[in-house]
Amino acid sequence: MRPMLWENRRLKLINQLLLPNKEEWIEYSDYEDVALAIKNMIVRGAPAIGATAAFGLALAALKYRNLEKDEFLEKIDNAAKILANTRPTAVNLFWAIQRMRNLLELNKDNFTVPELVEKIVREAETIAEDDVQINKKMGAYGATLIPEGAQIYTHCNAGALATVDYGTALGVIRSAHEQNKNIHVYAGETRPYLQGSRLTTFELMKDNIPVTLVTDNMAGFLMKQGKVHCVIVGADRVAANGDVANKIGTYSLSVLAKEHNIPFYVAAPISTIDLQIDSGDEIEIEERGTEEVIKVYDTFIAPKDAVAYHPAFDVTPHQNITAIITEKGIIHKPSKETMSSFF
Amino acid sequence: MRPMLWENRRLKLINQLLLPNKEEWIEYSDYEDVALAIKNMIVRGAPAIGATAAFGLALAALKYRNLEKDEFLEKIDNAAKILANTRPTAVNLFWAIQRMRNLLELNKDNFTVPELVEKIVREAETIAEDDVQINKKMGAYGATLIPEGAQIYTHCNAGALATVDYGTALGVIRSAHEQNKNIHVYAGETRPYLQGSRLTTFELMKDNIPVTLVTDNMAGFLMKQGKVHCVIVGADRVAANGDVANKIGTYSLSVLAKEHNIPFYVAAPISTIDLQIDSGDEIEIEERGTEEVIKVYDTFIAPKDAVAYHPAFDVTPHQNITAIITEKGIIHKPSKETMSSFF
Repeated sequence: MRPMLWENRRLKLINQLLLPNKEEWIEYSDYEDVALAIKNMIVRGAPAIGATAAFGLALAALKYRNLEKDEFLEKIDNAAKILANTRPTAVNLFWAIQRMRNLLELNKDNFTVPELVEKIVREAETIAEDDVQINKKMGAYGATLIPEGAQIYTHCNAGALATVDYGTALGVIRSAHEQNKNIHVYAGETRPYLQGSRLTTFELMKDNIPVTLVTDNMAGFLMKQGKVHCVIVGADRVAANGDVANKIGTYSLSVLAKEHNIPFYVAAPISTIDLQIDSGDEIEIEERGTEEVIKVYDTFIAPKDAVAYHPAFDVTPHQNITAIITEKGIIHKPSKETMSSFF
Repeated sequence: MRPMLWENRRLKLINQLLLPNKEEWIEYSDYEDVALAIKNMIVRGAPAIGATAAFGLALAALKYRNLEKDEFLEKIDNAAKILANTRPTAVNLFWAIQRMRNLLELNKDNFTVPELVEKIVREAETIAEDDVQINKKMGAYGATLIPEGAQIYTHCNAGALATVDYGTALGVIRSAHEQNKNIHVYAGETRPYLQGSRLTTFELMKDNIPVTLVTDNMAGFLMKQGKVHCVIVGADRVAANGDVANKIGTYSLSVLAKEHNIPFYVAAPISTIDLQIDSGDEIEIEERGTEEVIKVYDTFIAPKDAVAYHPAFDVTPHQNITAIITEKGIIHKPSKETMSSFF
């Protein structure tokens, strides 16, 4: 279930806010609309946001293909800023934009604007194609950690819908399922946006992977009953010491997993690892609107004037993480030392 | 904010399923409708269920007041069974019904049916009046544990709406607030029924007690940031060793509080303590319909055919509980030993 399509040099995104009740595709030809789609969570998930931003820059390049080079470069620079200024936590966004900037820096003196446009478009396509291959490799590595008959708890949606296809955490789950490991998934609903109930169940059911939906507050009770054999989540940013920023609730899950001696795995492509920051303390945590907490869809579930708090992410310290699964292999017991010897 | 009124020998319940969007009172004159109201959660919260069941038996007594004594006793016995067969976890239900049975057993040979009816009605009224006084005493004891300026996390609704008035956990909060302790409350929304967002915020806002709504999965992150100084919850049943059955999610919270060295308090009247059972392992955990997990109000938040799991309660082991607050005093470090020396 791909959340994005690049067809005839237009970007199509499935509106993830409406899933699973409605499958609506929106076509984008302007990067500013793409920036809004990221901000408003039409598309979400760190790798998906990265690829979407890359396509956003491809649309900007196509839009400005008739300008003089200086003006073209200025416009692309501005578009990059607008796309970068959508969501602060997931590093893939900045990674994808930086990759485009590097490409331009390297080639701007030797190529014409139309040639640069082609390079940018091709780079976006490559980022997207690579993402699928990366997820499959991650899935293969991760599946080695999944025992036969495992009951796996996952949070949020780190699936095909959070990437270009196949998924990170759900990529590991898919891979284990393809190996007939007879797995069963518990999907935490992931309030307030309900990515678990809306997207993860939807996506796994489409692939006939057994999944049971639970509310987030059931995780501890499931673990206490011995019903969870491991936890796998994705990541929005991993620091150089292995601390992981991910969807709000991930940290609580890691504490619960530790309490019950349950392995806690993070599946993250190298593009999600930010070696520029030493620890999770430096990761900016996005706060989103509080109406997202006091409403579900359009229905108020609290007094209309209730005060709410809505951090969209939290940070899980590396001490709580059993291993980080990447496309280049598994980092066991992530720490400053194990991370730096891995890279 | 009382959830029940006993007027002209009729029971009125506020429909808690519609709060806070609508304040609808439903009048009951038949105990079978009262049993349904308990089952369907028009009324909920262990002490409120107990008082409601007592009024249900009062309605049964009034209904059968013209029968011969043998037939009357048989009808009351049957009504007691129907009321007891609504929800399995909260012990106050069985406690209130047993109190009525004891009353009849003691008096049935010496009084006429009309006299027994009056005794039953008065007993129900006494149970309700006592509950308010009990909560105020619990509040006074509990407030001694709350430091000036405390930020208190609570789960579900253990408030006026869960009792006859004033509340258990929220009674402690009310008492601390009345003492101008400058407290602030974090209310966890408590999926799937959203008692925290729908009822606790509503009730605290009515009393001008500062409250911030969060989703259940934010608790760990709040604690990690030092924003929670203690946790207070209610209880549906307390075992003789101090294990506590309470709303699903309580156990997870207790683990998170332990991890962060945050005191974890349970406010429970003596009627919630079930000395007949040795430990929480013996408490029946109610499983409710899974449509309550895959929907919010009438809106599907997951594929319509999703499989879900819905335990309504969990058990928190006494080791995770700092103290149990009752109307007779505080049981510190609850255990088989401290509990038995308290009683």
